[in-house]
Amino acid sequence: MPSAVTGTKLHMAFRLTPHERGFYPLFTRAAENIVAAAEELTKLVAAEPSGRPVLAARVKDLEHTGDDLTHEIMVKLNSVFVTPFDREDIYRLASSLDDVLDAIEEAADRIVLYRLDALPAGISVQADVLLRAARATASAMPGLEKLDSLREYWVHVNSLEDEGDEAYRELLRDLLAPTNDASPLDVLTVLKIKEIVETLEEAADAFETVANTVESIAVKEA
Amino acid sequence: MPSAVTGTKLHMAFRLTPHERGFYPLFTRAAENIVAAAEELTKLVAAEPSGRPVLAARVKDLEHTGDDLTHEIMVKLNSVFVTPFDREDIYRLASSLDDVLDAIEEAADRIVLYRLDALPAGISVQADVLLRAARATASAMPGLEKLDSLREYWVHVNSLEDEGDEAYRELLRDLLAPTNDASPLDVLTVLKIKEIVETLEEAADAFETVANTVESIAVKEA
Amino acid sequence: MPSAVTGTKLHMAFRLTPHERGFYPLFTRAAENIVAAAEELTKLVAAEPSGRPVLAARVKDLEHTGDDLTHEIMVKLNSVFVTPFDREDIYRLASSLDDVLDAIEEAADRIVLYRLDALPAGISVQADVLLRAARATASAMPGLEKLDSLREYWVHVNSLEDEGDEAYRELLRDLLAPTNDASPLDVLTVLKIKEIVETLEEAADAFETVANTVESIAVKEA
Repeated sequence: MPSAVTGTKLHMAFRLTPHERGFYPLFTRAAENIVAAAEELTKLVAAEPSGRPVLAARVKDLEHTGDDLTHEIMVKLNSVFVTPFDREDIYRLASSLDDVLDAIEEAADRIVLYRLDALPAGISVQADVLLRAARATASAMPGLEKLDSLREYWVHVNSLEDEGDEAYRELLRDLLAPTNDASPLDVLTVLKIKEIVETLEEAADAFETVANTVESIAVKEA
Repeated sequence: MPSAVTGTKLHMAFRLTPHERGFYPLFTRAAENIVAAAEELTKLVAAEPSGRPVLAARVKDLEHTGDDLTHEIMVKLNSVFVTPFDREDIYRLASSLDDVLDAIEEAADRIVLYRLDALPAGISVQADVLLRAARATASAMPGLEKLDSLREYWVHVNSLEDEGDEAYRELLRDLLAPTNDASPLDVLTVLKIKEIVETLEEAADAFETVANTVESIAVKEA
Repeated sequence: MPSAVTGTKLHMAFRLTPHERGFYPLFTRAAENIVAAAEELTKLVAAEPSGRPVLAARVKDLEHTGDDLTHEIMVKLNSVFVTPFDREDIYRLASSLDDVLDAIEEAADRIVLYRLDALPAGISVQADVLLRAARATASAMPGLEKLDSLREYWVHVNSLEDEGDEAYRELLRDLLAPTNDASPLDVLTVLKIKEIVETLEEAADAFETVANTVESIAVKEA
């Protein structure tokens, strides 16, 4: 029955086998690890300067855990037969989760490294957006297997990205074009805060890439 | 006739079917949309500060149109059978067109957001390079189907990229290492203009990625 | 014997044929070209300002050579039948080698363009890390064919990346949060040096991407 065989092959090309679905628990763990890091970041941006180094160290530890998970996914990806199409999606999903955590770790590190004093309120908004995006992502990952509720997740992350983008724009405007009644920051402080604000925006963008990749997988598997 | 069947499959792997060529009108529309945005940007950088917000709003609208076109291409890409090879090219082409427009929109937005007064003349050169690259890209897109004149387009965009790069280098030098007879800008103004100049250079780089991807498709399909 | 045929096809999917291995000498040449550029960069950051332009011009020439090699790899990639999986690896390897050299050239160019006087000592550390990473990469490339010693190379480049990252962090801290006993730099000088330091860090990151891609190829081919 050649046509049945062909059918099976086409099926293989567009659906992950149970074995290949073994990727998804790893993605759930990677996303839960990002939730933990985003929780520490939220505490860090609300903490007194003296309380920040211990929180940044925890974020660093979680980033190492994330690196191990990314590496585990990549090794699995390279040793399992899946179609190239799905393979690129998996690669992109793992890479963008890794990018989120790298940016969170870098922001936490720089806040400590630059010995910053008070942080603008908008940075707490950015951290809160990241925490909510992390939780949405961790909740969505188990749905990859059954392709459940993924559209809702995608819409949610995109709306969080818009919220983050608005906070980012306002932070940049207040840093670079402050109104007359704001007490001006010295330029080195502007540079330090600008770098942190940009790094947090990169994390939000990477969450959007995660969501776009998940949507892409969902459309193909539907 | 197994060998004939194999021949057909190989053919499928390296040529887009008429159905799959349905991507190309979408790419033409995406490129024409970028032309419209680059035209507004050119007006914006020549306008008085009071005339800028309405032009930036038009660029924003065109960016939303571009997002819809990118999404339409991605959905089509995920629901149509093409080989992964071509698929990655299509993904890259759509992403880099999206990157061009995002950068143009961001530059237009920042010029308004930062309440900048006069802009350096080099920024008009950058905007003009982008407009010419957009027009070259829009003219080339219909050629994707017949693989016409694509080499000429690639050479043209690369030469525009060199022109843009020269304007970018001179702008950075004048901002960061002004000669003695130039009246120095205050540092916040330097930071604002530097960001805009860098964003416009990103748009030019993204046009080069578009051209490289088109060349790659052309070589494979030739 | 259908199963034998299938076996052959699977073999094709996961091993490069001798013809396709023709990529690897090109990668070796690209990596050796980067070694030459990193050597000039090391001299440049140690030179008196008056001696820099001639060294930056040599880096520029080597970057043109690198562009030609990248183009040769891409044309070969597009005209040869390999599986999409391997194809994406080759694309990524060529692109990340190109990114290394672009960043080295940009850093060299900016040091001259900005008429910088003394450079912080950390920049010599960054340049030295790049030179060692370049040599490790050039030594590893011939191993791609036999899949020899690639794990060792990957570990080596990752440890160099850590070393570069530490130098980068310290440079940023000294630029943006100098201790009281350091004589403060004027802000434009901070901006100039920050840009160069960031560009050199991009080169180090691109070497890590090269190493990750090589590891990925090695795992698949093992």
